[in-house]
Amino acid sequence: WRKRTLPLTQMFPPSPSLQQIQFADQKQEFNKRPTKIGRRSLSRSISQSSTDSYSSAASYTDSSDDETSPRDKQQKNSKGSSDFCIKNIKQTDFGRREIEIAEQEMPALMALRKRAQGEKPLAGAKVVGCTHITAQTAVLIETLTALGAQCRWAACNIYSTQNEVAAALAERGLSVFAWKGESEDDFWWCIDRCVNLEGWQPKMILDDGGDLTHWIYKKYPNMFKKIKGIVEESVTGVHRLYQLSKAGKLCVPAMNVNDSVTKQKFDNLYCCRESILDGLKRTTDVMFGGKQAVVCGYGEVGKGCSAALKAMGAIVYVTEIDPICALQACMDGFRLVKLSEVIRQVDIVITCTGNKNVVVRENLDRMKNGCIVCNMGHSNTEIDVASLRTPELTWERVRSQVDHVIWPDGKRIVLLAEGRLLNLSCSTVPTFVLSITATTQALALIELYNAPEGRYKQDVYLLPKKMGNMHEYIFLGHFLDEYLSEEQAKYLGLNKNGPFKPNYYR
Amino acid sequence: WRKRTLPLTQMFPPSPSLQQIQFADQKQEFNKRPTKIGRRSLSRSISQSSTDSYSSAASYTDSSDDETSPRDKQQKNSKGSSDFCIKNIKQTDFGRREIEIAEQEMPALMALRKRAQGEKPLAGAKVVGCTHITAQTAVLIETLTALGAQCRWAACNIYSTQNEVAAALAERGLSVFAWKGESEDDFWWCIDRCVNLEGWQPKMILDDGGDLTHWIYKKYPNMFKKIKGIVEESVTGVHRLYQLSKAGKLCVPAMNVNDSVTKQKFDNLYCCRESILDGLKRTTDVMFGGKQAVVCGYGEVGKGCSAALKAMGAIVYVTEIDPICALQACMDGFRLVKLSEVIRQVDIVITCTGNKNVVVRENLDRMKNGCIVCNMGHSNTEIDVASLRTPELTWERVRSQVDHVIWPDGKRIVLLAEGRLLNLSCSTVPTFVLSITATTQALALIELYNAPEGRYKQDVYLLPKKMGNMHEYIFLGHFLDEYLSEEQAKYLGLNKNGPFKPNYYR
Amino acid sequence: WRKRTLPLTQMFPPSPSLQQIQFADQKQEFNKRPTKIGRRSLSRSISQSSTDSYSSAASYTDSSDDETSPRDKQQKNSKGSSDFCIKNIKQTDFGRREIEIAEQEMPALMALRKRAQGEKPLAGAKVVGCTHITAQTAVLIETLTALGAQCRWAACNIYSTQNEVAAALAERGLSVFAWKGESEDDFWWCIDRCVNLEGWQPKMILDDGGDLTHWIYKKYPNMFKKIKGIVEESVTGVHRLYQLSKAGKLCVPAMNVNDSVTKQKFDNLYCCRESILDGLKRTTDVMFGGKQAVVCGYGEVGKGCSAALKAMGAIVYVTEIDPICALQACMDGFRLVKLSEVIRQVDIVITCTGNKNVVVRENLDRMKNGCIVCNMGHSNTEIDVASLRTPELTWERVRSQVDHVIWPDGKRIVLLAEGRLLNLSCSTVPTFVLSITATTQALALIELYNAPEGRYKQDVYLLPKKMGNMHEYIFLGHFLDEYLSEEQAKYLGLNKNGPFKPNYYR
Amino acid sequence: WRKRTLPLTQMFPPSPSLQQIQFADQKQEFNKRPTKIGRRSLSRSISQSSTDSYSSAASYTDSSDDETSPRDKQQKNSKGSSDFCIKNIKQTDFGRREIEIAEQEMPALMALRKRAQGEKPLAGAKVVGCTHITAQTAVLIETLTALGAQCRWAACNIYSTQNEVAAALAERGLSVFAWKGESEDDFWWCIDRCVNLEGWQPKMILDDGGDLTHWIYKKYPNMFKKIKGIVEESVTGVHRLYQLSKAGKLCVPAMNVNDSVTKQKFDNLYCCRESILDGLKRTTDVMFGGKQAVVCGYGEVGKGCSAALKAMGAIVYVTEIDPICALQACMDGFRLVKLSEVIRQVDIVITCTGNKNVVVRENLDRMKNGCIVCNMGHSNTEIDVASLRTPELTWERVRSQVDHVIWPDGKRIVLLAEGRLLNLSCSTVPTFVLSITATTQALALIELYNAPEGRYKQDVYLLPKKMGNMHEYIFLGHFLDEYLSEEQAKYLGLNKNGPFKPNYYR
Repeated sequence: WRKRTLPLTQMFPPSPSLQQIQFADQKQEFNKRPTKIGRRSLSRSISQSSTDSYSSAASYTDSSDDETSPRDKQQKNSKGSSDFCIKNIKQTDFGRREIEIAEQEMPALMALRKRAQGEKPLAGAKVVGCTHITAQTAVLIETLTALGAQCRWAACNIYSTQNEVAAALAERGLSVFAWKGESEDDFWWCIDRCVNLEGWQPKMILDDGGDLTHWIYKKYPNMFKKIKGIVEESVTGVHRLYQLSKAGKLCVPAMNVNDSVTKQKFDNLYCCRESILDGLKRTTDVMFGGKQAVVCGYGEVGKGCSAALKAMGAIVYVTEIDPICALQACMDGFRLVKLSEVIRQVDIVITCTGNKNVVVRENLDRMKNGCIVCNMGHSNTEIDVASLRTPELTWERVRSQVDHVIWPDGKRIVLLAEGRLLNLSCSTVPTFVLSITATTQALALIELYNAPEGRYKQDVYLLPKKMGNMHEYIFLGHFLDEYLSEEQAKYLGLNKNGPFKPNYYR
Repeated sequence: WRKRTLPLTQMFPPSPSLQQIQFADQKQEFNKRPTKIGRRSLSRSISQSSTDSYSSAASYTDSSDDETSPRDKQQKNSKGSSDFCIKNIKQTDFGRREIEIAEQEMPALMALRKRAQGEKPLAGAKVVGCTHITAQTAVLIETLTALGAQCRWAACNIYSTQNEVAAALAERGLSVFAWKGESEDDFWWCIDRCVNLEGWQPKMILDDGGDLTHWIYKKYPNMFKKIKGIVEESVTGVHRLYQLSKAGKLCVPAMNVNDSVTKQKFDNLYCCRESILDGLKRTTDVMFGGKQAVVCGYGEVGKGCSAALKAMGAIVYVTEIDPICALQACMDGFRLVKLSEVIRQVDIVITCTGNKNVVVRENLDRMKNGCIVCNMGHSNTEIDVASLRTPELTWERVRSQVDHVIWPDGKRIVLLAEGRLLNLSCSTVPTFVLSITATTQALALIELYNAPEGRYKQDVYLLPKKMGNMHEYIFLGHFLDEYLSEEQAKYLGLNKNGPFKPNYYR
Repeated sequence: WRKRTLPLTQMFPPSPSLQQIQFADQKQEFNKRPTKIGRRSLSRSISQSSTDSYSSAASYTDSSDDETSPRDKQQKNSKGSSDFCIKNIKQTDFGRREIEIAEQEMPALMALRKRAQGEKPLAGAKVVGCTHITAQTAVLIETLTALGAQCRWAACNIYSTQNEVAAALAERGLSVFAWKGESEDDFWWCIDRCVNLEGWQPKMILDDGGDLTHWIYKKYPNMFKKIKGIVEESVTGVHRLYQLSKAGKLCVPAMNVNDSVTKQKFDNLYCCRESILDGLKRTTDVMFGGKQAVVCGYGEVGKGCSAALKAMGAIVYVTEIDPICALQACMDGFRLVKLSEVIRQVDIVITCTGNKNVVVRENLDRMKNGCIVCNMGHSNTEIDVASLRTPELTWERVRSQVDHVIWPDGKRIVLLAEGRLLNLSCSTVPTFVLSITATTQALALIELYNAPEGRYKQDVYLLPKKMGNMHEYIFLGHFLDEYLSEEQAKYLGLNKNGPFKPNYYR
Repeated sequence: WRKRTLPLTQMFPPSPSLQQIQFADQKQEFNKRPTKIGRRSLSRSISQSSTDSYSSAASYTDSSDDETSPRDKQQKNSKGSSDFCIKNIKQTDFGRREIEIAEQEMPALMALRKRAQGEKPLAGAKVVGCTHITAQTAVLIETLTALGAQCRWAACNIYSTQNEVAAALAERGLSVFAWKGESEDDFWWCIDRCVNLEGWQPKMILDDGGDLTHWIYKKYPNMFKKIKGIVEESVTGVHRLYQLSKAGKLCVPAMNVNDSVTKQKFDNLYCCRESILDGLKRTTDVMFGGKQAVVCGYGEVGKGCSAALKAMGAIVYVTEIDPICALQACMDGFRLVKLSEVIRQVDIVITCTGNKNVVVRENLDRMKNGCIVCNMGHSNTEIDVASLRTPELTWERVRSQVDHVIWPDGKRIVLLAEGRLLNLSCSTVPTFVLSITATTQALALIELYNAPEGRYKQDVYLLPKKMGNMHEYIFLGHFLDEYLSEEQAKYLGLNKNGPFKPNYYR
């Protein structure tokens, strides 16, 4: 979930009609969740993922104590270029190594690069981008460049930039404007520096959260005349685009890369299966074997968490309100319980419902000494953390992201990440998962840039299924069995080159 | 798979000799599959399941060597009633025991009965039914009776009747007309005896395959004036109903009970996870641990088979043509292969694709000595069994449903059920699974019978989600966590009593 | 566990000193378990396995209603030989097919045969054998023959002979004396016919239970002068041999093939993992997914049962009294309970302790309606079945091996195999498992027959580890990684050709 | 692995310069492994574990840049005591929190403390200890104190002390002499300060590695007259004790706490099942799902690693040389391969053999780009890392414990911890596991301290089984089912209070 702390009321100050849309949007985002997107938000979006996730290395590295603002520094790389603004160009080598590590886990992008030695599907494409600046996005950006694009880049979050990666990008000649710990003013200044360059008219927008799009709308609306499309990845940004479209104000085609089946499965089931273990270990070093855990909610996230803990020898209980998911939990061998039934005996409580107030003070009061409580589901609403801020309870920060909340009788519960998403706060998102999204973004840019006039109108699109599968072919192609024969395809009533599954398949 | 499907073009013609229609029908059934239903047939329907599945007991019992046709016998139960026609009333006790065993695994129906001690939602409902006559349907029929219905029943398949169950039903007073090994003429005679009784106008139809419906259409069209609705369970029967509806010829509302999420999951994933093991053990006594198996297709059936064999210590390879399912197999830890890569080394080959000619002679030629080959997917088309009927190969029937096919060099492969569905031919369908369908049928009858005028038109309906969940509540109700609070429901934009998942969820 | 129903008091009637040993033995066997073998008997022996296990086919076939005693029939095979006595030579073809099926799953024996095309390590060995006569032993016997042995064979159990297999053996020229349903007199007559043939002095004894050995001791003690050794497989037989040895009465070397690591693991963990599912399905058709089961005892058998049910989606509880096993259960993710805690809620109760009265009437009284109760552990002592034989309870035999025991309030529990071993009574033992034992028997014969004078004294031996591994090499040899280099072996202080594990390893 | 093992031949010589002994020692340690302990070293000992393992927190905290030697500082805690020597007393609060976290996962020790409110089994026991100084040992030490002991403590390793924990101990009044980064001279100085205090005669020794014991032997042999016993936990230390015993030089009883079944299982199977995932994630952030891994060796460690990776969706191959373990791998569903077969295709290579040169340069040359190579088995010998130190290969340190080794063609492999033990270098050992050992140590002290005269001679003992189970009872007691009845115990030939398993059970 977008977590930029800038109040939106300050974000789009004077300004015309767009502002009002933004205001509406803003309120929805932070105050009450719009019922319109109710269903969708039950599942975590990559925008959440991408917002707060740091690679293992990141936490060790940003210790540069230099307090000078990058905007006040002289910026120059070893080839003499100075069209960028970053923290410290000297961190290049470390950043390059991080990028190289990431490349190992992004086979589909590397395959695209290999193909690009022949064809350059983005030749001449001027791309302006606004995403987290991490090793993984660096691999994406350098892939776009290899495909022929000219890129300028800013950060979509004031905290998430890996300075050393920005350095490595700048050293290779990318016009990147980003550092960790930007002020609000810096944030918009960076975006503006990307967009507003004499003689540089962007053709494509790659956005994560909608701020870049918003800025162009607000400051340089005429630029849209020559822009071929927007690729947007976050729930929030996609939501904004649909609002614009509904209001008749979307003036170029846009691609929603947030909703492919594969992406949803990866972000949720497969990714959480690994990150629940990683997040718990890094924060608490707890042994899983023999522990009792309750997982609240058995959607994709809950399925992943439950399976992982069970595999490590924990006894897992599941709570559910939906009978379909409840039956699935049941058939998968988990005992269905009401939370109150097991709350006294469990060692670990994990929320994955997408709902609010799933674990409330009454539950917390009854937990046993040492119980670990964390949230894998959504935002920071699932555990009623506010209810723990009362005078009789003592909070003790024992490690980064780990609080002991201590009851008057000495009982302590271990609260992780103050109830925010554990997997974003306390574990890394596997590069491989980010690779799926990044490949989709690259394919969406290629599609929009090369689409014949008229294929896309001023609307929000999903990547065509055929295209959307492409990165899967790239990744898995050599494993897939022979395609259908003519005869088999006819028998099934399918196209022999696919797609083979209905749209709703997952 | 239904063995008696009428081609729809010929389904309701003026037509003289029913026999001829039937013959045409069978050709269609076995020679070419209608491309129109292509997609749907990828998943196995309960109609398939229900067609050929015998309980463990059945095979031991039908040894009554009495050759007299039941139609020529005097039928009378211990209370003097003779409004039925079955093989042998003396088998009552054995049949009753089989029913009692089934009751243990059908908790939702038994719960419905308990509720029926107060209310009788089917009071006065005259129900005519045509289904397999097994212990499980007996529990359904006796539940309908407990709910207030008056029932008359025939078999939907000439082979599938458990004579002892029919006896137990007749003894309790049900008007049942069915025995194992009916002739074609018997089949329609039985149906007619159900429908055509002086002073007995049916109000509801419960059909499995559409033959009963067809007969009334053909012979007693006026009856439909007083019929409140049809409940149909099979793919074939549902397909016929949609055709009628499309042609404007459906004259009462109909309920399609074939397509609930739960049912699909149960029939495929959860059920096959158990029946693949059961089917292989009963036929070959093979030890799974350490064996290498290849599963062709990673849809729900393939997922179930793969998971089960892996859990028993087999090494499982998967073939797929669809990239989504391929990625799932991959993430679930199965090695994706082309069939040709592993065909020489595997001990077991299982087809689950819904396609035809997935395993062809060339593959069979290369299998190693002792390789077991079977089909879990669909019909009998997946393995090209016909290609094995050549002079140089010797077939040896070593057990019921087990053939050794012997190559000139002495190599033998073990072919199960001649390539027909293993789980229907060689294992039992767990009663619990059938219980889900049976409960849905009962609920559909209740809904149609009690619906206010005008709620349902002359069309095909799915059971309302709320109703459809009911049997899940009955089964799981006490396990489900507290429902949503007002506040939570509002937060999620959902009704606080559900449904909680979108329709496409699975 | 040996289950021959002959009272031992009748078995060894007049007779001298040996008889007293036998008497002691007998009492121990049936009345109280000898404390001396206390420990060992916690795990099931192959002797148990081999006693009661029937192949799938067996139950269908022994319906030959011919009441004439084989001893009164004229016996002749197609080559004119009549040195055998079986039920019906005409069943040859069926028996041969069963043997061929078994051969598929006995790769190590088949590999031994292949090797025997060159060398004949049993050339000239006159072997007299007394085992169950099943397809699997037939493969063993025919392998011994291929290795050069001349065999004469009797059954070690009056019920366990597969008549069709005996026919197939006789047709191929084996002197086999066995049929299903022998009388006590027949039993000893058959053994005598094996041993007592003019001009045929046995060199080797292959025994299962010790009866053949006993007979020779009793009737033809002089024969031992030329016998090179005894190979014995059952717990009981081995126990008798140790008794003889202790009493100084063992007059030839004997091999105990009951105690190899691999065998123990196979007979218990791996085999039970499969047979618990098979046994439950064949008797009750129960669906495992979502069921709650309690497994009493977490030794090897309990581990296998628990793992299998968990894998099929059941929720499994474990009871234990030993803290080591309890910790293992805990770390494997099973909830440790006292039986009384969960007895009201579980659907399935399985005993695997090797103890007696683990499930008593008090527990049975509290089980819920429909609860399935069965024993996988040991003998028939674990469930106090006798306590259910009281007037207020009704027993109803609903299928072979399945009883409903009905309480006055209508509650019924489903008791399998009357509390005897489920896997022996209601499922098949995978041929592959029997293959391990059979190979060990063959290797033991080879070793004793070829051992240089003096290597073995008049004592009971385990197969030398090197030899004992041989069948594993035969089976797995091509998979094992390269052996140790000189340097590695030196580093580890091991012989470079193994064995690589200490004797106690498992 | 112990870094300071004295060669036993040189262990107690007259010898002048300790330094020289140490040098010799290190040569022995790293160059050739004593063949004498061959077998035993196949399994990892806790001494290994305890040597190099740091808690998550440790790595973040030791940044105190104060270069003054603690020996030159004035040491004083808030109560005015100065009988200790540590880095920085101000770190008390942080250390206390770490200890509190650890307490949560050490239930058995906490239970012992609770019992100690009544009885003080170590009342008056003067204990001198030499172990790693971590949060976990702090819980042990404070438990001993609660049980009545007076303790003085030094570190057994110059690097492993958590300074903040030492501070917290000192603040509570413990005489602790330890800091991270001691010199050799510091090391012995600290030990001497523990032992050599006017008027303080130690009664018990708690040692990890044997250095403390050695020091007393060497410097204060007379002290042994009043010492009641030694408790030693490491393989190395235990080995030294057995040597002393053999040489007739052991002058007090000693307890070997390294060899309980539970401990072995925990240290290896259960612990590695978790730490392989943790170690790989923290170093590489690799996604496990869909990866191919080869595990070399299928002992307890290999079993744990294979099971964990399989559970996370990896495809796992196993190499083995021992047929028993190979069969187990096979039955557990892993494909047995020779390393050379799969080396080109795998993504992860893990060694767990206890052998040397398992992965050699030839294998490394053939790995694919990006392959991760690590060692879970033993020392640093399994991967021939030395062979990678050649001029044509470039090493790049990309993160702490992570090297890219780059081939001339650009291929890079990812080598973790330079081939040392991954779980010690790159993951934490779960506190719960350490808890088992710590409890055993406490129980051993209690036993030796309270044993009646004459129960223990001057020899090395294992903790009596009854005692050894005690901590399991403490931990699991309320879960264990009712003990045996008289009748059952008699039936089994066991004591009704246990132990219930033979000594060799595992």
